[in-house]
This record gives sequence, C-alpha cells and structure tokens, in this order.
Amino acid sequence: MRLLIDEKERKYLVKGDSDVHINYGVVNAEELQKTKAGGIIITHLGSKLNVIEPSIIDFMEKAKRGPQTMAMKDSSLIAGFTGIKSKSKVIDAGCGSGLNAMFLANIIYPEKLVVYEIREDFAEIANNNFKKAGIENIEIKLKNIYEGIDEKNLDLISLDVPEPWEVVPFAVKSLKIGGYITSYSPSIEQSKKFYDKLIESDARFAIETVECLVRNWNLKVVRPHSRMLGHSGFITFARLLRIGE
Amino acid sequence: MRLLIDEKERKYLVKGDSDVHINYGVVNAEELQKTKAGGIIITHLGSKLNVIEPSIIDFMEKAKRGPQTMAMKDSSLIAGFTGIKSKSKVIDAGCGSGLNAMFLANIIYPEKLVVYEIREDFAEIANNNFKKAGIENIEIKLKNIYEGIDEKNLDLISLDVPEPWEVVPFAVKSLKIGGYITSYSPSIEQSKKFYDKLIESDARFAIETVECLVRNWNLKVVRPHSRMLGHSGFITFARLLRIGE
Amino acid sequence: MRLLIDEKERKYLVKGDSDVHINYGVVNAEELQKTKAGGIIITHLGSKLNVIEPSIIDFMEKAKRGPQTMAMKDSSLIAGFTGIKSKSKVIDAGCGSGLNAMFLANIIYPEKLVVYEIREDFAEIANNNFKKAGIENIEIKLKNIYEGIDEKNLDLISLDVPEPWEVVPFAVKSLKIGGYITSYSPSIEQSKKFYDKLIESDARFAIETVECLVRNWNLKVVRPHSRMLGHSGFITFARLLRIGE
Amino acid sequence: MRLLIDEKERKYLVKGDSDVHINYGVVNAEELQKTKAGGIIITHLGSKLNVIEPSIIDFMEKAKRGPQTMAMKDSSLIAGFTGIKSKSKVIDAGCGSGLNAMFLANIIYPEKLVVYEIREDFAEIANNNFKKAGIENIEIKLKNIYEGIDEKNLDLISLDVPEPWEVVPFAVKSLKIGGYITSYSPSIEQSKKFYDKLIESDARFAIETVECLVRNWNLKVVRPHSRMLGHSGFITFARLLRIGE
Repeated sequence: MRLLIDEKERKYLVKGDSDVHINYGVVNAEELQKTKAGGIIITHLGSKLNVIEPSIIDFMEKAKRGPQTMAMKDSSLIAGFTGIKSKSKVIDAGCGSGLNAMFLANIIYPEKLVVYEIREDFAEIANNNFKKAGIENIEIKLKNIYEGIDEKNLDLISLDVPEPWEVVPFAVKSLKIGGYITSYSPSIEQSKKFYDKLIESDARFAIETVECLVRNWNLKVVRPHSRMLGHSGFITFARLLRIGE
Repeated sequence: MRLLIDEKERKYLVKGDSDVHINYGVVNAEELQKTKAGGIIITHLGSKLNVIEPSIIDFMEKAKRGPQTMAMKDSSLIAGFTGIKSKSKVIDAGCGSGLNAMFLANIIYPEKLVVYEIREDFAEIANNNFKKAGIENIEIKLKNIYEGIDEKNLDLISLDVPEPWEVVPFAVKSLKIGGYITSYSPSIEQSKKFYDKLIESDARFAIETVECLVRNWNLKVVRPHSRMLGHSGFITFARLLRIGE
Repeated sequence: MRLLIDEKERKYLVKGDSDVHINYGVVNAEELQKTKAGGIIITHLGSKLNVIEPSIIDFMEKAKRGPQTMAMKDSSLIAGFTGIKSKSKVIDAGCGSGLNAMFLANIIYPEKLVVYEIREDFAEIANNNFKKAGIENIEIKLKNIYEGIDEKNLDLISLDVPEPWEVVPFAVKSLKIGGYITSYSPSIEQSKKFYDKLIESDARFAIETVECLVRNWNLKVVRPHSRMLGHSGFITFARLLRIGE
Repeated sequence: MRLLIDEKERKYLVKGDSDVHINYGVVNAEELQKTKAGGIIITHLGSKLNVIEPSIIDFMEKAKRGPQTMAMKDSSLIAGFTGIKSKSKVIDAGCGSGLNAMFLANIIYPEKLVVYEIREDFAEIANNNFKKAGIENIEIKLKNIYEGIDEKNLDLISLDVPEPWEVVPFAVKSLKIGGYITSYSPSIEQSKKFYDKLIESDARFAIETVECLVRNWNLKVVRPHSRMLGHSGFITFARLLRIGE
C-alpha cells in the first residue's frame, strides 16, 4: 500500500497495482511503483502528489467506519493512561469498525489483541480493515462479552458497548491486579451505571472518569477552528486493586 | 518497588526494604514483603492499604518533577497521533524531569529512546526517575539539540524546548519520510514561529496544531470537578512528506 | 464607596470615611475624599492606587459570598439568552449571597426584582450585599418557592435551588407566554429531572441546556492561564410556548 | 410581528398580513391575526404551530447575517462583564449585520446606542434588521472609528473591527473613568496587538482577555451534542483606570 498526499493534504490510500483516478487526474500505476517514499508523482493533469508509506494512523483515517467510531484522541488516552505497551494482554469489546482495536494492537504487538463482537457484519468490516492495514495480531471472537471472558491475567479490557456494567463481574476474574477495565459511553448516565456497579462490586477499583476535548488551531491566522468535536464519549478508567472486601 | 493505595486512593511508592511512615500510621517492612499484589496491609493505626505492582503510570505520577512537566494527556496524544510502537526510533529533547521520555520509552521498548538535554541538573533528576522506574532503554545525551541531531531514520522527534524552530533544519535530515517532529509550547507564539519555519523550509510537512483539554467527572454526584487544568501546552505535529521543493 | 485598584490590579472597596490599611500601607481618609475618580492616591509606603467609582461588577466581586455562588459568566448567559432588560419582570429563587440577584436587578431597573429565599442567614448576607452596593430594587421574600409563586406575567424565573423541578407547576401559571424559567444545577442529574418534569408538564416549553466555559488568557506571553474553572453549573432555559396540551 | 414555533422548535418570524407558506403547509393570515400569544394555529396540512410574541432574541436569531456575526454568548459576556444597564452610554463599532448592536441597545434603552460602520452595505443590512425588530434607539454613523470618536463620557466602546488597537487613543478621551473598551477578534494575534497598545498607552487600563465556550446538552439521552462552536472570537476587556502616567 502507498499513501498519496496532495497539496491540500488530502490523503489517498492505494494499492498501486492499477491506475488511480483522483480529483486531480490519473496516477499511472507503473510510475507509482517506481516512486519511492518521499518522492513526488504527477497526475496526467499536472497535480503533484507526495508518496509515503502509510502508517497505522493513515489506515485508521482511511478505514471504513461504522456509526460510533471511537475518536483517535480517546484511543490515545485509553492506551496512554493505562500504560499498555508491547506484550500487554488486552481485550477490546464492541469493536465496531475496529479502529480502536487497530490502535491497541499496534501498541501491544507482537501480543495478540482479542476482540469480542456479537454482530457479524461489524466483525467483517473490522476484519477487512485489519487486513488492509496488514495487522495480524488481532483475533476476533463472535461472542457476547456480557456472557463471560475466556482470557485471564489481562492488563486492559477496553469496552465500547452499550451496557458496560454487565462486564464488571467477569472483569474481576480476568484482570490481573493493577489491570484496567475502561468504558467508553456517549451518555453520562451509562458511565454512572458503570461506576455504581464498580462501587457495589466485591472487588476494589480505583476509578476515574474523564472527557477529552481536542481543539485544532489554524496557525496561518493563529486562531482555533470554528468547528470542533464537542463530544464523543466519556471514558471511565477502573483499575483493579484487590478482589474481595 | 511496591505501590500502596489507601482508601482515599492516595498512592505511596515504596521500596519495601524498611518500615514506611505515612499519614495513617506505620507499615511494617517485613509484613510488606510478605504481601502480594492484590493483598491488603494494615498500618499500626489500623488503616487499610492496597498493595499492587507499580506501573509506568505510577512511576510517572510519583516522579520528582521539574516546573514544566508535560501532562500525561499530552504525552498520550503525541504517542497516539504519531502511531509509535515497539521498536520505533524516537528522540526526546528538553526532557525536564523525564516524564515524557519515560512514557515514550515504555512504548518503543526494547528500542532505546535518545534524550537531548543541555542542563545537567535536569538530566540528573530525569536519570534518577528512570532508575526508580526501572527503565533502561533511555540514553541521555548532554547535548544542545539546536546544534544538530546525530541519529537518522527517526520516527519521531518530540520537542519540549523553548525554540523548537531551531530544530527544523536538523529534523529534515534525521526524520524518515513519514516521520514526525512535534513541538510542545505553552505560548501559541512559539507554535506560530515553529509553524512558519516549517512552512518556509525546503522540505514539505503535513502540519497540525492542537490543544487538549481533559475534564474529570465526579460520578458520585455526576458533575465535572470545579478545578481543571485550563492549559498545559499547544502541540504541533509536523510529518515529513518530502525533502526539497 | 470608592474602588481602589493597586498596580497589580487588586481591588479594595472602601467607604472612605476612615483610614484604609492595605498590604501596601495606609491610605489617608481625608486625602481619599479629595481624590476624584481617575485620580491616584499614594499610601504612606509610597504605593500608587487608582481611584474609581465602583460599578455593579465591583460590588459583586467584593461581595461576601456563600458556598455555591453563581459565576458571573452564568449570570451573563441567563440575562443574555433570555433578553431581559429595563422593566422586565423577574424572580430569583435560592439567592444565596445574592450575586445573581444583584446582576439581574441592575438590568431590569427600575423594576423590582423579587427574591425567594428560605434561609434567613442567606437572606441577611444577601441583603447586606445589596445595601453595600446601593441596590434598592430588590425585595426579599422569606418564602419557599416549592410552595408557590405570588407574581404573575413574569419574563424570567431564575432558579438556583436543589430541586428546580418542584417549581415547574407554579412557573406555568406565573410566566407570561414567551417567558423563561431557568435552572442552574451543579449536577447534570438535577438538570435531567428538571427537563423530564418540563416535558411531562401539560404546558409546552422550548428547552435548551448548556454549560459555559470561560478561559482567561495571559496576553503578556500569549497563553491561556493554567488554572481554569472547569465547572460551575448546567443552565437549562425553558421558554413557555403554551399552557395546556 | 408574530413568532411561530413548530413541534420541532423551528421558528418562523412572520408579519401576519398575508398567508405564510412553511414546510408543513400554509398558515392562513386571517386565522393568524385572531390567534393570540400562547395559542396554536394549524396549517392546512394539519401541523401545529405555537404562536408567541417575538423577543429581541428571536429577532437576533432570525436576522439577516453577515459573515462574522458575533455570537450571542459573546454579546452576553460583553454586556455582563461590563455591567451595562438602562441609560448606559455605549458605542458599537464594526456592526456587521447589527446583532451585537441590537443586543446592547435592548439593554441600555431608552439611551441611544451609537454605531460606527464604514461599509454602507453592512449599515443597510443592520438598519433593516433594527427596523424589523422594532428597535429605535440606535443611530448608525457611516464613519471610520479609526479616525476618531465624537461621543464623550462613555461606559462602553464595543469593537468588532480588524484593527482594534487603532481606537485606543480615541477611547482614552471618550471613555469615562471606569468605562470599558472591548475588542472581539478571531485571531489571538489581533488581541495581542490590542493588548500591547493598551499597555504602551499613557493611560492605565485593567485588562482581561477571555474566550467563551458554550456546550449544548441533549438531555433526552444526557450527553453533549457532538457538534460545537469551537471558536468565535477572543474578547479583551480594558477598563480605563486613569488618564496619564
């Protein structure tokens, strides 16, 4: 795969095995294959395109998306605040189009990320996105996480499901001490129910709920953009401190 | 090292080789050594403490800090938006007390993170923080990054220095195509100068500037906290697309 | 009353009938009385103080405060989004230390603002604040607004009470068509209950809920302040469109 | 004028002297004139419309707009933080489509608001908006405020012009002591230049710069809206403390 970036910073993710038709003309396949990362390719209409190797971030940006995709900022905080790294053991549940899974799998590689998803159509979209991005360390289980978790000794269970509180009893058994279960919910009422279930649980968790706002600036004129993502989801981080009262 | 967490979620990072005196009494060293992660230890005054293995996040929270420490949210975005992972090649310049370096090193392990720092006192504080956290994949260079970068083929140059624009010419030679140079500046005027230098450069960059606000919620009463970090720094992400016009 | 402002923009609200002792020395009473607005007065230690006439804003800033004072930004939105002006008919309930009442009374003057407050101690604090500021168009009723509203044909009922939903049935009878009832609640759960009661009511309201974040910038170095008020209250605006299904 | 509000809270501002064609059918003119505020009118397709008296807020919402209209939140802060009220003396410069002028005039009534605007086309749009809203206490001057201010003893000079710093020397002569000059600028660089001019001036000002973010919540599902106005303008409040060093 190659990533083409035009002068307006629009991105085109292409295989390079056939001619590419974009707004600014046609890119010749043969020429494309000869152009290395860092090179320029010219369309038949004379437009310049930068050629680079796509990264995980590009694959995520260009992936096919479902309706409620977790934002990159939120995936970043989940990975960052839990401190996961290469070889961490992680589960992602409610994978949607798989973007958060791709993000987490990239970090824990070569460890395998396990995904729980009950909808076959979502699993298929996600799987196609993983393939396109060349990510191989993800295993999708067509299984309802509300009914149990097979894995043990987990560092992170990342939930993007409508009823995260249903997962708490299983998390207690599957997380390692010091591991995290996180929920991602558009409504604060869902976060509240998750919180209440954690508090009522026999186990003891350190709990924190945050929301993250990222504002883009236009530095040409030194002002923030007018449009902004005002809300995606509330993230609750619950870290297992001990099992039992 | 062990992490003790009291019932109010205050954390104590201790070696465990001698008695620990905290607000709620004394923790016996011998007993501490016998208590496993997930266990509870009782102070001589009867207070309960959870015992867990500290993670990189705990070491960062309890590290000795300099005045302008990069916030965890910002380190998370820098790592997340650039997609670094195990074995990425990364430089961190202006390390301060080393928290961002610890964060990045944790992700790129076992690759070595190279730190540029001109102040010996900061380098020493940082080094002590690395040792305490048991992080070994960091090399500190007492070198001014405004005078050049030795490394080549880098995925990320993370700057937390007063004049990030001074580094642009060296970044062009040291970044791999598709790699990132990021600046972290409290004043938007610094970000603007960095931006202008990037634009004027012979090389071509895809540039984005953001600020990140994280708001904590108290779910007991379902409201955001009154106090909030209103600003830390503006982050500029510049991705090298090509060298030369 | 005179307002003294020192070189660091700290404010001192003084009567001027006796010497004033401040951090930077003593201000002589006689001299103070001779100094007009726009003049400077020098303390016995040589510090300069600007002398100006205090405005309603100064009286609000220097007023004695209770624990949950409505923020100026929120009072501004309540007045601004409802379009009140001179002679509007307004009720303020749960006045606390009276700051929001002072703000609203200033705008609707010479119309009298009616305040409902059940706690005598709060009413007294508020009353003292009104007197100090020379505001005479406020009438305090020691009455529980959950039990009814005497006034009719109101433009605005501004609530800062724990259970705003209790007031909805009375508001329907006391608001003029097109008038507003607003709630100000720290917890979004309170706002939700207020919303539900409005929706279930026989009357029809146009409803909007907002929160307002104001961020201060330090233009000397062109950056936002680090500290910020992350939350005060959620404001719900409900405008009476019709009575009855 | 009458305001019609449909069941989805869309608003239609109508004269009522002829039939009204809306998405949901036709509203009969005769019937409309018979329907009082608080009543309902049914379109020929059976849709219900609430009928109310429009307020200044409605006229502002439905006014014809230019490109850079000041947001209601910002007008509210300008009025609120400066404490203007009935009979305050206020100038509005760079009126655009006149929304901020309408807002300020509503508060200072019956005092006349003076508007400085150099573009005849804007003045005409603004004037039409004032007429439609029935606001008579505004006088538009086709005059460049960079060349001087005729009025004296002002409480507030509200600027929405590209180079607010040009107005500082005139403001010093036209503001009363304790009065405010405010700037509203999309770029923080403009605010910085305004700030620098104020600081360098012979006169002494108390200066504060803020930005205001208002986030709307959907209480049906208890979550903020995804879309949000991420930026309109930075507001600088400068209060004249004294003239001369």
